[in-house]
Amino acid sequence: MDRQLEAAGFATGEGGRKDLAQRLSEMLDPQIVLTGEGMHDYCRDWHGDVQSDAIAVLRPRSTDEVSAVMRAAAALGLDVVPQGGRTGLVLGGVPDQPARQVVLSLERMTSIRQIDAEDFSAVVEAGVVLEAFKEAVAEAGLFFPLALGAQGSCQIGGNVSTNAGGVNVLRYGMTRELVLGLEVVLPDGTVFEGLSQLRKDNRGIDLKQLFIGAEGTLGVITAVSVKLLPRPEHVATALLALSSLPDVMTLYRRARQQCCDLMSAFEFLPPLAFQLAQEGIPGLQIPIDTSHPAYALVEISGSGLVDIDDLMARFLEGAMEDGLVIDGVVAQSRQQAQNLWLIREGMNEGQARRGKHLRTDVSVPLSKLADFVAEAEAAIARDMPGCVSVSYGHVGDGNVHLNVMPDTSLGADSIDPQIKQAKKIVNTVLDGYKGSISAEHGIGRLKKPDFEARLPEAQRQLLLAIRRGIDPDGRMNPGCQLDPR
Amino acid sequence: MDRQLEAAGFATGEGGRKDLAQRLSEMLDPQIVLTGEGMHDYCRDWHGDVQSDAIAVLRPRSTDEVSAVMRAAAALGLDVVPQGGRTGLVLGGVPDQPARQVVLSLERMTSIRQIDAEDFSAVVEAGVVLEAFKEAVAEAGLFFPLALGAQGSCQIGGNVSTNAGGVNVLRYGMTRELVLGLEVVLPDGTVFEGLSQLRKDNRGIDLKQLFIGAEGTLGVITAVSVKLLPRPEHVATALLALSSLPDVMTLYRRARQQCCDLMSAFEFLPPLAFQLAQEGIPGLQIPIDTSHPAYALVEISGSGLVDIDDLMARFLEGAMEDGLVIDGVVAQSRQQAQNLWLIREGMNEGQARRGKHLRTDVSVPLSKLADFVAEAEAAIARDMPGCVSVSYGHVGDGNVHLNVMPDTSLGADSIDPQIKQAKKIVNTVLDGYKGSISAEHGIGRLKKPDFEARLPEAQRQLLLAIRRGIDPDGRMNPGCQLDPR
Repeated sequence: MDRQLEAAGFATGEGGRKDLAQRLSEMLDPQIVLTGEGMHDYCRDWHGDVQSDAIAVLRPRSTDEVSAVMRAAAALGLDVVPQGGRTGLVLGGVPDQPARQVVLSLERMTSIRQIDAEDFSAVVEAGVVLEAFKEAVAEAGLFFPLALGAQGSCQIGGNVSTNAGGVNVLRYGMTRELVLGLEVVLPDGTVFEGLSQLRKDNRGIDLKQLFIGAEGTLGVITAVSVKLLPRPEHVATALLALSSLPDVMTLYRRARQQCCDLMSAFEFLPPLAFQLAQEGIPGLQIPIDTSHPAYALVEISGSGLVDIDDLMARFLEGAMEDGLVIDGVVAQSRQQAQNLWLIREGMNEGQARRGKHLRTDVSVPLSKLADFVAEAEAAIARDMPGCVSVSYGHVGDGNVHLNVMPDTSLGADSIDPQIKQAKKIVNTVLDGYKGSISAEHGIGRLKKPDFEARLPEAQRQLLLAIRRGIDPDGRMNPGCQLDPR
Repeated sequence: MDRQLEAAGFATGEGGRKDLAQRLSEMLDPQIVLTGEGMHDYCRDWHGDVQSDAIAVLRPRSTDEVSAVMRAAAALGLDVVPQGGRTGLVLGGVPDQPARQVVLSLERMTSIRQIDAEDFSAVVEAGVVLEAFKEAVAEAGLFFPLALGAQGSCQIGGNVSTNAGGVNVLRYGMTRELVLGLEVVLPDGTVFEGLSQLRKDNRGIDLKQLFIGAEGTLGVITAVSVKLLPRPEHVATALLALSSLPDVMTLYRRARQQCCDLMSAFEFLPPLAFQLAQEGIPGLQIPIDTSHPAYALVEISGSGLVDIDDLMARFLEGAMEDGLVIDGVVAQSRQQAQNLWLIREGMNEGQARRGKHLRTDVSVPLSKLADFVAEAEAAIARDMPGCVSVSYGHVGDGNVHLNVMPDTSLGADSIDPQIKQAKKIVNTVLDGYKGSISAEHGIGRLKKPDFEARLPEAQRQLLLAIRRGIDPDGRMNPGCQLDPR
């Protein structure tokens, strides 16, 4: 690639980058080309762990401008790193080769092209912030179920490109299951017009599936058509205390059967969650005795004629009679429900305040979840006695965030090695359960080595065939997921 | 390809086919090679409209034998046409080049490898008949929601390969949404081991999505891991009469909101459905006045603590009070519910008994469904006055089967031209609504010309890149969907 740049008459050092940025400003509308200090935030990850650089940040305002950007990048032989709201947790949108990469930010493509209440669908551009979209949909009397901690910042294009998960996957699926169609600009600037409001369309190989979760390695998603749902008018939220994580799993299976498809969230929390939440959000009220061994945060929701409060009451009555739930609180107002969810969010904030730590996002079969957590936490306690494990996550998806906070008494220099060691321990246990190293966060650059190390050769060849077929020059986010060259 | 065969020492006429079959018997276990008269049924389509031929029918009993078949076919330069239960409606599994194709039937791969009640998942081989699988799942106290008229014959591998739809898509999605993982034998015999019981696994590009709906053009699906659900213990089924199709659509939107996510089917039927059903199933009882303009068959279902009968009763009470539903019957027993569904199935049988006719499987946005049906039926009535249109389908998916029965008074020779003309009329109206020519049946060979005629160049290039990347010699079901060579 550097040879290609040199052949095109560019040096590839600092001067070369300036020349290339200048050339981009000449080829494109200069208003979409950002260079210098302004690029700082676009080259940094969400947690601030990584600060990189790029030739330029390109901020097109329309699909045509994205196409022009891709043609210009192709002409100059530059790599393109597509970027959404920069809330990703695996460095998928952070450049790693400043001398030959441009960042393509979709943040200016912010039009909600249409919301169709009769069709239960909408068409929205990639740069629209998830929360803003959800609010617009709610104003139309409908509901878009994707729900993430980062929803105030993350963008729809990034959600689709990373196949984002969140707390409602249990009922509504990953982002993939909410997508009806895509508009994608391909590496050579061609526009793949795949937007659709059809709910059922079975014309052979479904191309949109390729781009969902590809993290910008095959093209640039510029707009998305999505499914909408009736707004859940009734929501019942409960925080429950149980005797053990296996009991939480039993409760989940019982809820699945008794509450049918009306359960929209089922999270598990350790007792430490409450302390972390209060560290993260000082003054946060905890409406339950925090000394029990395990907790579940359960939400049931629905619209229309189903009595959701009654359903929750009868479900809990049975579970308490049988001794499965030993304590619990049901939110009596929207405010109280929000407060319960704040515990879940505050726990993340609390962990962040304790400093750098191992964050994982793994999944195992449902029947193995409790065993996996017990085994991995025991391994950490045995081999790294000063560290603190905290496991929580989306029970119904078999998705655990088993995080490990290092032993700070060992000094600042030991933090990174401790994180590395803890990851190795967790992943070794995980491999024994045939689990996934990424349940919802994607691969990006951060998980690429662990992903490649576990990738069977047949899969690797298939992935390479697809990437080479669609992006023959390997210029789409090449450091992400797998090296295409 | 013929040159390749000749280069390998084979003539390509009748004698050449025998030589190749002989060679396959030498290379493979002869028990899996079927030739001669025995091949007859394997080379015929479901409706008996097409009878073809092949070099041999290969019936492997294991993934290893499928792999051996693929290696043998590769060595001889033969095309492979994978085949399931032969219930497909678009000729996806029917060979079309007898001199160079082998049929690969999965019918002997009939093991249900595992059913995991705690994980709500199962692993099942491609040749297992859908109904047999559903029964085994029910015995384990669980539920697999795929529901098709052909379920007594169709096989899981074919369901996945064609991304089958059916009457419960509204609630549970197409087959794609039920698949957790796949085992696929690739064109060179390599096995892609992608079986998984993880409910959430977001490791980049999701390769299994490519094979779902590919109709055997990229590889051979040999086993599938699927999601299971709690068994719906309570089912309420109602047949309702309404004043018009637009009223049916209004009722659907109302049901969607009022019955939340507990509606599992919502079909619309024309008054002619009852006459056709009685022609198809003589003596079938029709428990409703058949003179109303439009009908809906509605099913609500759930497990556990939700009172489904009460929900149906309250939903209907409101809809009748508001004059939207003018007559109706709610099944009082499982037997009565089955009888209502027999009307839906008998209608298909009745159409078949009237002789060859146009069958379509189109979709439009929900808000356009009533307009599309009115416009297409009017166009048929205007241009082909002796023909009879019958439209029915899956309202919640925007999926219409608008079928046209020819004017038989014009003589047997005119039937095929009439079908052709009717198809052109329907598709022209459909194109005006940006509809799909295949909502659930796939493309196969039958819809390939109509598919290719509407395929944008960018999509065509992407599809070719994928097919050439995975099947460089173009030997996987090459006549299907798109010509890869």
